[in-house]
Amino acid sequence: MMTERSDKLLLAVDLTGTFVFALEGAMTAIQFELDFFGVMVLSFATALAGGVFRDLLIGAVPPASLRDWRYAATAFTAGAGVFFFHHFLLQIPSPLIVGLDAAGLSLFAMAGTEKALDYKMHPFIAVLMGTITGVGGGTVRDIFLAHVPSVLQSDVYATAAMAGAVVMIAGRKAGLSPAKAAALGGVACFTLRIVSVWQRWSLPRVTAP
Amino acid sequence: MMTERSDKLLLAVDLTGTFVFALEGAMTAIQFELDFFGVMVLSFATALAGGVFRDLLIGAVPPASLRDWRYAATAFTAGAGVFFFHHFLLQIPSPLIVGLDAAGLSLFAMAGTEKALDYKMHPFIAVLMGTITGVGGGTVRDIFLAHVPSVLQSDVYATAAMAGAVVMIAGRKAGLSPAKAAALGGVACFTLRIVSVWQRWSLPRVTAP
Amino acid sequence: MMTERSDKLLLAVDLTGTFVFALEGAMTAIQFELDFFGVMVLSFATALAGGVFRDLLIGAVPPASLRDWRYAATAFTAGAGVFFFHHFLLQIPSPLIVGLDAAGLSLFAMAGTEKALDYKMHPFIAVLMGTITGVGGGTVRDIFLAHVPSVLQSDVYATAAMAGAVVMIAGRKAGLSPAKAAALGGVACFTLRIVSVWQRWSLPRVTAP
Repeated sequence: MMTERSDKLLLAVDLTGTFVFALEGAMTAIQFELDFFGVMVLSFATALAGGVFRDLLIGAVPPASLRDWRYAATAFTAGAGVFFFHHFLLQIPSPLIVGLDAAGLSLFAMAGTEKALDYKMHPFIAVLMGTITGVGGGTVRDIFLAHVPSVLQSDVYATAAMAGAVVMIAGRKAGLSPAKAAALGGVACFTLRIVSVWQRWSLPRVTAP
Repeated sequence: MMTERSDKLLLAVDLTGTFVFALEGAMTAIQFELDFFGVMVLSFATALAGGVFRDLLIGAVPPASLRDWRYAATAFTAGAGVFFFHHFLLQIPSPLIVGLDAAGLSLFAMAGTEKALDYKMHPFIAVLMGTITGVGGGTVRDIFLAHVPSVLQSDVYATAAMAGAVVMIAGRKAGLSPAKAAALGGVACFTLRIVSVWQRWSLPRVTAP
Repeated sequence: MMTERSDKLLLAVDLTGTFVFALEGAMTAIQFELDFFGVMVLSFATALAGGVFRDLLIGAVPPASLRDWRYAATAFTAGAGVFFFHHFLLQIPSPLIVGLDAAGLSLFAMAGTEKALDYKMHPFIAVLMGTITGVGGGTVRDIFLAHVPSVLQSDVYATAAMAGAVVMIAGRKAGLSPAKAAALGGVACFTLRIVSVWQRWSLPRVTAP
């Protein structure tokens, strides 16, 4: 049984991930010279679209991030913060941003996989749902900006989310508690992402003939 | 309790909004030289995607506009009308189009906010749903055309929808009847939109460094 | 009543359609030099997004293609096959691809129309759902690639799906069994598509003034 304390911890962690992704969405919006509303939309979409889409697909409607107003409030606070204080944010060292983003990705991938399993999805589909939760927001952001989603083109990003989800499910099958399996999967996702950025790994691609 | 008469009035108003937005979608499709099917899709999407998306999010499935065939029929009639008679439509004076569009926006924003409240969403989320209902169709239209949605870039458009939704909810909290609160919110949205076009207002934006 | 045997036949036919559309999605992904993950996503989306979207709209949640892991597995197998053996696939004669694609379109359009009728949608809406099932995957693929969906621009493609759906529903109203009506509609869709490619038919369009 989940205690109230662990519930609060989960919410805090989840809102932190929302805040980080919303910051990144807002900074992208400013690079593309969107107006204040555009910054808000990109904050919201980058932070929450992955989870919203997962919830629509598994039948958890209304999506969690619309049932609890604190998700939207967190995303909009981050967006407004970037809008008014972007000068300071530009001075954040890039490795810190990569680290925060990897942490957000790990968290969202684990939360998405776990929720899909709770909704009785097949483990294979749960891995997909975890990946969608992690990368869906960035994909919607890129579609809004009329770009080919960067997650389709390069980097070990979705792959890290997927690997983490696989590790988590394997951990559960091997008898770990859900919390330990999620921690293990999250560490796997985070590590793979960080190492791949550091080593400049990319997925293979085929050169069009 | 809603009388049958007010029900019929609401449907008539709703279908009018659908017709206006479908006209605009079709005219955009013709500017982009889409074929007959493309014109139909853009009519349908511009008119109905906002409401469809709201209904998916609040769990009102199937969406209202797919439960009652008259919504789709209205959108397609408008689309076919534009396809065959676009020469005449191009002569409609631009202020009339802006006025009709602002009326459609006001109506959709009020209807969306009200429906979200009916589905027990938090007022803050209901404002979001009203805004999505108003601007979702135009956003999907722009994504189909591989453009950054214009609503993210300029103009007081989504802001007008959002302001109208806030006024409506504030009116209810202050004790107005739902009908009066909706009328007040609709007038606020309409007025803000018209004045902002007339005065060429835009939302602030940050210049990328 | 549906026998187990016809059920198995239907599944086999459905997975064949999924395989064909996933092949096409993957080949497009390779043309656009997406990485391995991008090829997988485009395989999945092209094959399954139409049905997923239909299921969300009619309230069949979770979508069929997420309830049965074999759909995703089929799509990913096709995608991986294209990634590793694309040299061979490029030698498939183009008429065979057009024929397979037309068969996939016919199948998806019939399956989508039938499912919408099962969910008590109005016949007019069922035709829309059949069309969305047939063309939704290609539309999502084009949006991922930041293109105006080709289905909006040219060719008798969506129109063939729509015509097949209309024929199927008319056949049912005329007293044909569901199976015979679906076969008739599928043949109509397939024939119209093939003849239109052969004769280079296009839908009319309006030249922007």
